[in-house]
Amino acid sequence: MGDFEMDRKVLETHASPQTQRDLSLFFEPQSLAVIGSLREGYFGGYVVIKTLLKAGFEGRIYPVNPSYQEVLGLRVYPSIKGIPEEIDLALMIINRRSVPNVMRECAEKGIKAVVVVSDGFAERDEEGVRLQEEIVEIARQVGMRIIGPNTAGIANPANGLIPDPYEMGYERVKAGGIAICAQTGMINPQAFPYADIRYGVSKICDYGNKCDVDECDLLKYLENDPATRVITMYLESIRDGRRFLEISRRVTSKKPLLILKSGRTKEGARVSVSHTGSLAVDDQIFDAACKQAGIIRLETFHELFELPKIFVSQPLPKGNRLGIVTFTGGVGVLAIDEGEKYGLSVVKLSPETRTKLNAIFPDLGKKIVDIGPAMAVINNYMDIYSEILKAVLLDDHMDCLLNIIWTSPFEDFVEEYLKFYDGLKGSYQKTIATWIYGPSLSLIHKMSYRMEDLGFPVFSNIETAIKALGIAYQYSNRKKGGA
Amino acid sequence: MGDFEMDRKVLETHASPQTQRDLSLFFEPQSLAVIGSLREGYFGGYVVIKTLLKAGFEGRIYPVNPSYQEVLGLRVYPSIKGIPEEIDLALMIINRRSVPNVMRECAEKGIKAVVVVSDGFAERDEEGVRLQEEIVEIARQVGMRIIGPNTAGIANPANGLIPDPYEMGYERVKAGGIAICAQTGMINPQAFPYADIRYGVSKICDYGNKCDVDECDLLKYLENDPATRVITMYLESIRDGRRFLEISRRVTSKKPLLILKSGRTKEGARVSVSHTGSLAVDDQIFDAACKQAGIIRLETFHELFELPKIFVSQPLPKGNRLGIVTFTGGVGVLAIDEGEKYGLSVVKLSPETRTKLNAIFPDLGKKIVDIGPAMAVINNYMDIYSEILKAVLLDDHMDCLLNIIWTSPFEDFVEEYLKFYDGLKGSYQKTIATWIYGPSLSLIHKMSYRMEDLGFPVFSNIETAIKALGIAYQYSNRKKGGA
Repeated sequence: MGDFEMDRKVLETHASPQTQRDLSLFFEPQSLAVIGSLREGYFGGYVVIKTLLKAGFEGRIYPVNPSYQEVLGLRVYPSIKGIPEEIDLALMIINRRSVPNVMRECAEKGIKAVVVVSDGFAERDEEGVRLQEEIVEIARQVGMRIIGPNTAGIANPANGLIPDPYEMGYERVKAGGIAICAQTGMINPQAFPYADIRYGVSKICDYGNKCDVDECDLLKYLENDPATRVITMYLESIRDGRRFLEISRRVTSKKPLLILKSGRTKEGARVSVSHTGSLAVDDQIFDAACKQAGIIRLETFHELFELPKIFVSQPLPKGNRLGIVTFTGGVGVLAIDEGEKYGLSVVKLSPETRTKLNAIFPDLGKKIVDIGPAMAVINNYMDIYSEILKAVLLDDHMDCLLNIIWTSPFEDFVEEYLKFYDGLKGSYQKTIATWIYGPSLSLIHKMSYRMEDLGFPVFSNIETAIKALGIAYQYSNRKKGGA
Repeated sequence: MGDFEMDRKVLETHASPQTQRDLSLFFEPQSLAVIGSLREGYFGGYVVIKTLLKAGFEGRIYPVNPSYQEVLGLRVYPSIKGIPEEIDLALMIINRRSVPNVMRECAEKGIKAVVVVSDGFAERDEEGVRLQEEIVEIARQVGMRIIGPNTAGIANPANGLIPDPYEMGYERVKAGGIAICAQTGMINPQAFPYADIRYGVSKICDYGNKCDVDECDLLKYLENDPATRVITMYLESIRDGRRFLEISRRVTSKKPLLILKSGRTKEGARVSVSHTGSLAVDDQIFDAACKQAGIIRLETFHELFELPKIFVSQPLPKGNRLGIVTFTGGVGVLAIDEGEKYGLSVVKLSPETRTKLNAIFPDLGKKIVDIGPAMAVINNYMDIYSEILKAVLLDDHMDCLLNIIWTSPFEDFVEEYLKFYDGLKGSYQKTIATWIYGPSLSLIHKMSYRMEDLGFPVFSNIETAIKALGIAYQYSNRKKGGA
């Protein structure tokens, strides 16, 4: 397995590239078999079932284990063949050596979709490589599809399918328009506070060792998934670069596709190529290919969990004219620098707007609308804040707004803001990205989440907020360019 | 004032370049006059005094205002000349038109250091430009130094000098080794939750319109300030590039200097140059000059508040060999990519360490030490975690550690970690940067701050954690290179 012993995606023999059936059995099963230990604890089949019940899974759950009669009020079946119904999806968390036999039972039962959570396959040792080849062969013979092995699993919050194997309060994951996929469990809810930051997802998929289902299969499924409004992916390798870009080109004519790719540097790429031998070797080539295919590239891990938000609650900007409302002129040049990276240009507001702003407070009607000086000396602050924001948002010279909010450490202050934004929501046609700063971290967080609830995406850094507007602008150009 | 009406640092006439006296009167005054309104509220002289008292300012405070007799138990003086003592520092928050006259009174009183918080000077209009020239002239005649005007002020938490004009619980700002300076109030405690994230500062300085004290003066003062172990600056313009680099070269032989510079793009630079006409026009030239002078360049605003931490609680790495302990192999390639940017190379641990790790759990002794698989199946988890961390930290093949921690949403789990790190502190010689992730945002934050209290710097993003190690490595090379 080479010098660098990466614990994932070593062997990527493709089970059934000819199988064109989509992945809806994985994400919308009517019946689900959970095969594995039912011992209580933080990890395993018991947790899967507990979370499914809490999340209100809409399908029927069939626990499979020879040693139990009943778990959490559900009847337990000693084996798969004993289940009296057709099974759409099987999920197994069992010892790796048991997987091939259980796969065969699944095949006999006619199951067409299996998630193999179990690890210890091609990512571990020679025996694991052989076991992985074996299950791929079993699946190929009957047209069964596999997600995994070595995966933290999948999720579809809309129907309560949150069968992840860790006890983590998954049932709180909010349904929304963002699909997130990766060859790592770092995107699953045991790793990321989806609920806390109100990150609404349509589908989550860690495709693990991708012995069968891969990035292309997922793209094709998500392309036509009506719940998915934006797709974000973390890739380490791409099995078939040409096919991936072809599908991506089609997908991006319908919805935005955001990709973080590792293996960008020489050493990283060396590791990547040793696993895949595929397109992703030269980062510059990949970059150019992304541009052609309309893919938006991400640069950091946290962007996976922030930037897609701009596409689910905000309209696309009609042009590149950036407005800035702030409490400090000091971030002006920063905003200009960052905006220029994405083709955004700080707008001069219309003469009418500038007159309106100057009437509210002297010198307010500038390129960068700095509320700071007014803030310090005016009593009816929130009235004025409201007038300023509305004046700027109505200006047709502006396409998108970088909305910088300073918040005090006083709770009532935050409530006033939220009251205003509650009234504002839905009444404008501009793309708004918000960054909140101030002296109290807990209030910044509280205000951020409630702003998100109101439909205003809040970003953790000023540069990320600007990038969100930048990629929204770039994607609006992609859409104009035609499908 | 040109097309782009920036609200800061327009006119930078230098008051007294020949005055070589240092800035200690600003940061260590024995007596401080606070000149301005004493009306209760969120902003102004009243707040300044209230915060100074709460923060336990060690000097004597002399409020100056003709309309009051007493404020917060302190006698109020009708004018500066009435104060019966020599005054080290005056801070004024008064109408801009009153500033020149009060400056003259300060000059007569022999005051040598003045912070002009008031705004409406060169950043506003022609009258403001004239007023600023006038106060510079007054100062020049008597060798008085000015910070500002148009500044949110300065701070020195060690002696309780936290005279900022906003009511924000400033007194909680922790004393520490980081000096932070900028030409904007975005670094002052009304804008940043210093206390919440345990960011310990030696000195804060918003130098505002820098009509006198500028980045060079501050560097020279901080160079010899024993409380300052690392200097971080946000620059939009540099008055004298050659002098700045000359001083920087000397400073970086003693302590790390981290700089975020805006005006990097064409439009940003155009704005910058219209204010300064100085070095900072071509970003590539500035970048090369920084490398020569040993300056560490920052790329984003949040890095100002994160990266310096690595220099105050961690030893410098002896080499570039990066160890990684993680709960997911999925971030491995990401870490390699990022590390390579700074010359870090992922280390192969020693045979002894690998044997030790493999005895703890099968396959643990790899380049990337992935605790994830053990985590899921082992009961005495925290014992094993402790053994793993200690084994890795003792390995002499490794110079610095990227310490990725997954934390559950269960409070007792966090407490176990903290108990371990409390025992670990001080017993290793490696540079450790930590990133914490998991499903509960509030627990991640809580654990992060308490880790900081224990002396383990925690970074908000994985890339920032790696960069912290990277710049620590680069700075250790700078130190080896000699003064």
